[in-house]
Amino acid sequence: MKVGVFDSGVGGLTVAKSLYESRLFSDIVYYGDTARVPYGSKDQNTVLRYALEAIEFFNGVDVDFVVVACNTVSVVALAQMQQYSNKPVYGVIEPGVLALQQRQLDKNDDRILVIATKATINSGEYQRRIEALGYGQVIARATPLFVPLVEEQCYQGPILDAVLQHYFADLSAHAITTVVLGCTHYPLIAQAIAAYFNGALTIHSGEAMVAWLQQQLQLNAHFDKTRVTIYASENVAAVKRVAAQWGLPLQSDAPAK
Amino acid sequence: MKVGVFDSGVGGLTVAKSLYESRLFSDIVYYGDTARVPYGSKDQNTVLRYALEAIEFFNGVDVDFVVVACNTVSVVALAQMQQYSNKPVYGVIEPGVLALQQRQLDKNDDRILVIATKATINSGEYQRRIEALGYGQVIARATPLFVPLVEEQCYQGPILDAVLQHYFADLSAHAITTVVLGCTHYPLIAQAIAAYFNGALTIHSGEAMVAWLQQQLQLNAHFDKTRVTIYASENVAAVKRVAAQWGLPLQSDAPAK
Repeated sequence: MKVGVFDSGVGGLTVAKSLYESRLFSDIVYYGDTARVPYGSKDQNTVLRYALEAIEFFNGVDVDFVVVACNTVSVVALAQMQQYSNKPVYGVIEPGVLALQQRQLDKNDDRILVIATKATINSGEYQRRIEALGYGQVIARATPLFVPLVEEQCYQGPILDAVLQHYFADLSAHAITTVVLGCTHYPLIAQAIAAYFNGALTIHSGEAMVAWLQQQLQLNAHFDKTRVTIYASENVAAVKRVAAQWGLPLQSDAPAK
Repeated sequence: MKVGVFDSGVGGLTVAKSLYESRLFSDIVYYGDTARVPYGSKDQNTVLRYALEAIEFFNGVDVDFVVVACNTVSVVALAQMQQYSNKPVYGVIEPGVLALQQRQLDKNDDRILVIATKATINSGEYQRRIEALGYGQVIARATPLFVPLVEEQCYQGPILDAVLQHYFADLSAHAITTVVLGCTHYPLIAQAIAAYFNGALTIHSGEAMVAWLQQQLQLNAHFDKTRVTIYASENVAAVKRVAAQWGLPLQSDAPAK
């Protein structure tokens, strides 16, 4: 089984890493649109156009389906990508919402915070889907500054503390129990976010996607080796460096079976 | 006299504002590549390609010359833009360096800090030109986090303080006297930067460009009204909102003479 992973830049490597660690795939083909990153602060029409260009790319690549790692793309362009794709395309929103449900916390006691880019939050997609499950206490907040912080590797320290305070100071009284990390960059600072909310659970798109694929596609293969190939619209070398930093072994490190 | 202003996004509005306030121009035509912003963390080849597409745009626009407000583009692509343009193209680096010279501080006592994007700092262009003037004490530092902070309107407060500390804590012993703001976003936080360095002078690309144009082109017109027209590769309404926030009157506010 071969999977394609699309993201606006390097953030989706967190999803690729979960797919890698699942051992469910023989091949992962990653494409990051690094020449036009970020998407989260851009127009819906612009994101849609870029997303359809990514589908052009994957239409010519030998994978069984495509995972859209980027939350912004998943809320803005998924239906159209599915329409123009010659293979199935799956977004991260539904898996994230399913993962929320599977924690089996009491819906009345669970106070959920969704954090994501402006585009994702403004779409209201997460909020609608979570409320549709019967959760009454859902707070959504755009937290765009986390993205450049992660890209500058500020995973902890006074800047991150100041930004957490900036976004969340008014939520301390809400006793948040679960935080949906609605942007692929956020898992890198999941520890700091969980600590800020006194050990709240965090929902990670990559882990959620693996669980969802296993359930939906009845996947149960096991590959000892997974071949990871990385493409990018610019500076693929930089994407490979980040992948290595984030613990994702590349093709040269993990030869095919 | 009509001037075109090119920037990767909204940052160049700080330069457009200086041009507006100079009263030297009847028309300012601004183009921001908001669909692909930011440039400062991207590849040289990518920035060059985008810059030449901007020249295509300005080749079809009725202006007398084009000002490249973006420092990154000015260091990476100026010569090629001049080659493909059907009118003169001026970058912000030379004006910035000239402004430094005109302060008439003693070169031996002047301790200069240049801050800019990674692309601008890595090019070494500012450093080379400033050192060529005989300044011995030049420190250059990439400060990319300032850009998203300005875009989130964090012009002061604990996040900005933490970021200033992050970038500059080790410079406190250097008694910086002058800071070259080598990115169009930085004038918005010039006060905080000057305060951090105990009242250091700041060099602002927009003001430097006006002084340089006056000197180079012997401009001495005076227009009571300046018509400002804004174009963007996406979401021109958002650019106009930022222009209004930053105090740049738009066409509807300032009808042509």
